[in-house]
Amino acid sequence: MKFGLFGGATSHGSNVAIDSGQDYRRYIDYICEAERLGFHSVFMVEHHFTGFNQVSASLTFLAYLAARTSKIRLGTGVTVLPWHNPALLAEQAATVDMLSNGRLDFGVGRGYRYAEFSGFCIPMSEAQERYDEALDVIRKAWTSSGRFSHHGKHWHYDNVVIEPAPTQSPHPPFWVGAGNLDVIRTVAREGIKVLLDQLSVPEVCGQRLAAYREAVEGQGRVFNPLDVGLTRGLHIAMNAAERDHQHALRAQFLDHVRRLTVNPNAAAGTLAMAATGSSPREATEKTTLIGTPDEIIGRLKVLEAQGIEYVLLMDLEGSLDSLRTFAREVMPEFSGTARETRAETQLAAA
Amino acid sequence: MKFGLFGGATSHGSNVAIDSGQDYRRYIDYICEAERLGFHSVFMVEHHFTGFNQVSASLTFLAYLAARTSKIRLGTGVTVLPWHNPALLAEQAATVDMLSNGRLDFGVGRGYRYAEFSGFCIPMSEAQERYDEALDVIRKAWTSSGRFSHHGKHWHYDNVVIEPAPTQSPHPPFWVGAGNLDVIRTVAREGIKVLLDQLSVPEVCGQRLAAYREAVEGQGRVFNPLDVGLTRGLHIAMNAAERDHQHALRAQFLDHVRRLTVNPNAAAGTLAMAATGSSPREATEKTTLIGTPDEIIGRLKVLEAQGIEYVLLMDLEGSLDSLRTFAREVMPEFSGTARETRAETQLAAA
Repeated sequence: MKFGLFGGATSHGSNVAIDSGQDYRRYIDYICEAERLGFHSVFMVEHHFTGFNQVSASLTFLAYLAARTSKIRLGTGVTVLPWHNPALLAEQAATVDMLSNGRLDFGVGRGYRYAEFSGFCIPMSEAQERYDEALDVIRKAWTSSGRFSHHGKHWHYDNVVIEPAPTQSPHPPFWVGAGNLDVIRTVAREGIKVLLDQLSVPEVCGQRLAAYREAVEGQGRVFNPLDVGLTRGLHIAMNAAERDHQHALRAQFLDHVRRLTVNPNAAAGTLAMAATGSSPREATEKTTLIGTPDEIIGRLKVLEAQGIEYVLLMDLEGSLDSLRTFAREVMPEFSGTARETRAETQLAAA
Repeated sequence: MKFGLFGGATSHGSNVAIDSGQDYRRYIDYICEAERLGFHSVFMVEHHFTGFNQVSASLTFLAYLAARTSKIRLGTGVTVLPWHNPALLAEQAATVDMLSNGRLDFGVGRGYRYAEFSGFCIPMSEAQERYDEALDVIRKAWTSSGRFSHHGKHWHYDNVVIEPAPTQSPHPPFWVGAGNLDVIRTVAREGIKVLLDQLSVPEVCGQRLAAYREAVEGQGRVFNPLDVGLTRGLHIAMNAAERDHQHALRAQFLDHVRRLTVNPNAAAGTLAMAATGSSPREATEKTTLIGTPDEIIGRLKVLEAQGIEYVLLMDLEGSLDSLRTFAREVMPEFSGTARETRAETQLAAA
């Protein structure tokens, strides 16, 4: 099993202007320490206009990290295509890929936060068509030999070549967040890797992974378990009081995402969050890595039994202590297994 | 007198895809060495669709350099505003400013290359209005307290806040390229710094600097000579053969820029390049730092007599040897002069 990180720098302070640099620097230290501890990747969120200092220019930030790190893969989780000029985005992503010697994992999405669509004055109803068109342009940018043109609904380019060329061939892998089984099968067939959400119970994660695997193998290709990354909240708790604290943190986080997702003006907002059909506390116990290191090992073995071999940790507190505890007490249980060796072999053969 | 660099990584190889990483890495080493040698700044060009691998994502590239350097100022020379979503650009620039601890010099422009307008399918006739609107948005982004909205001709934002906040206060300095005296006076009054072009003879540079200075002092402010950066081609030549080689390089460069600037379909393209009224070779002798170190010192003293105290070197070959020769044999002649000391004092008092 391999482990990565999912998240980004955030200021919880009241004075964002003063705190921002400090929060970013703390997050940079966190990533550098994760690399030293053997984490495989970081997927960094990109959000806009939040008012609490989430990373907005994730590719810019990853370019900085490209210089500060040498092994850890650098991902966006995800870049929301409808906000970006796709030619500029392809240039920026290729630049990060080149500066990092081919370490970019390019997560892309169509966006889900009401406040972002509203802020950019882009109708949410255009999200899919804007996403599709932008992805089409980026693919052309990275796979056309020589110059190309594009005349779509939202973007026009005439006789252009996108430079620099990315380092990975044919281009940095695309990742998308997906939960719907049909969508998972479609992206699998397109050679896109998939990020599974942090809200689903292990059985559902297993079904999704199986759908991806079957779609890949249905094309006669070898399934690489590292093509499916599953995000899980990390909530190390050594006693009942710490567990209560972690539950409170989690509830606060979910409430926060819910408010950013829905239209505050709508009578009944539709949540993008998966319904779990249980109380928040029960849901957290079922869907996160909460508890002592031993409990967390048990939870990961449940996921492993579902075929999951790549877990992205999301620690809301960004705690170096938790990162080190996880690396010291949990990771060794999942290193060098037969399953991982098989994955590596398949990766090398792919 | 202070010295910076102007330019960017470029592949002159025939196979851009293979060469690009190598060219960028060579350029990174060049900047790092420049910092060690005491250069004050680098202004990096941004160009698109050239086919010879010029830096396209200059802020992304500067974020990487922010991690590799600690003192040298990091500039764009220039970011062409009409290509960019100004909210995203403000986020990216602020991120670079924060990651570099306040070292961003934010050069902005309206664009001049026909092939770029054509590639982005943006009419050249809209350059000014797009530039004006984008600059307005970026200023609002960095100076509004709390959230703001913008509803212009090309961009719409509703109730947004741009994060992170830049480190420099109130924001990274803006720089624009200007030659027209009225434009120079206007930007001076707006507190924008100015990049003077590399094609004008010293007397013209002096007139422009004087116009800037008078406009600033006319407002009762103290003129800072470091607010006017003059780019000069660096062409170190120790003998006649090297001089011929440098002249040939320069002619090739000017021809290249001319072709990118004009509309190839127009019967008579209008050049953005200043006419010098003399042969190319004579113009190069009048407008560049060509010759031996002693000759170059003489040329710089002519500029110094015109009031110029900040020179940005543009070496087409990106030669480390030339950089070191300049630092060793030319720079000491201009360090610690009374004039520079005065500038520093004024800067500290400003």
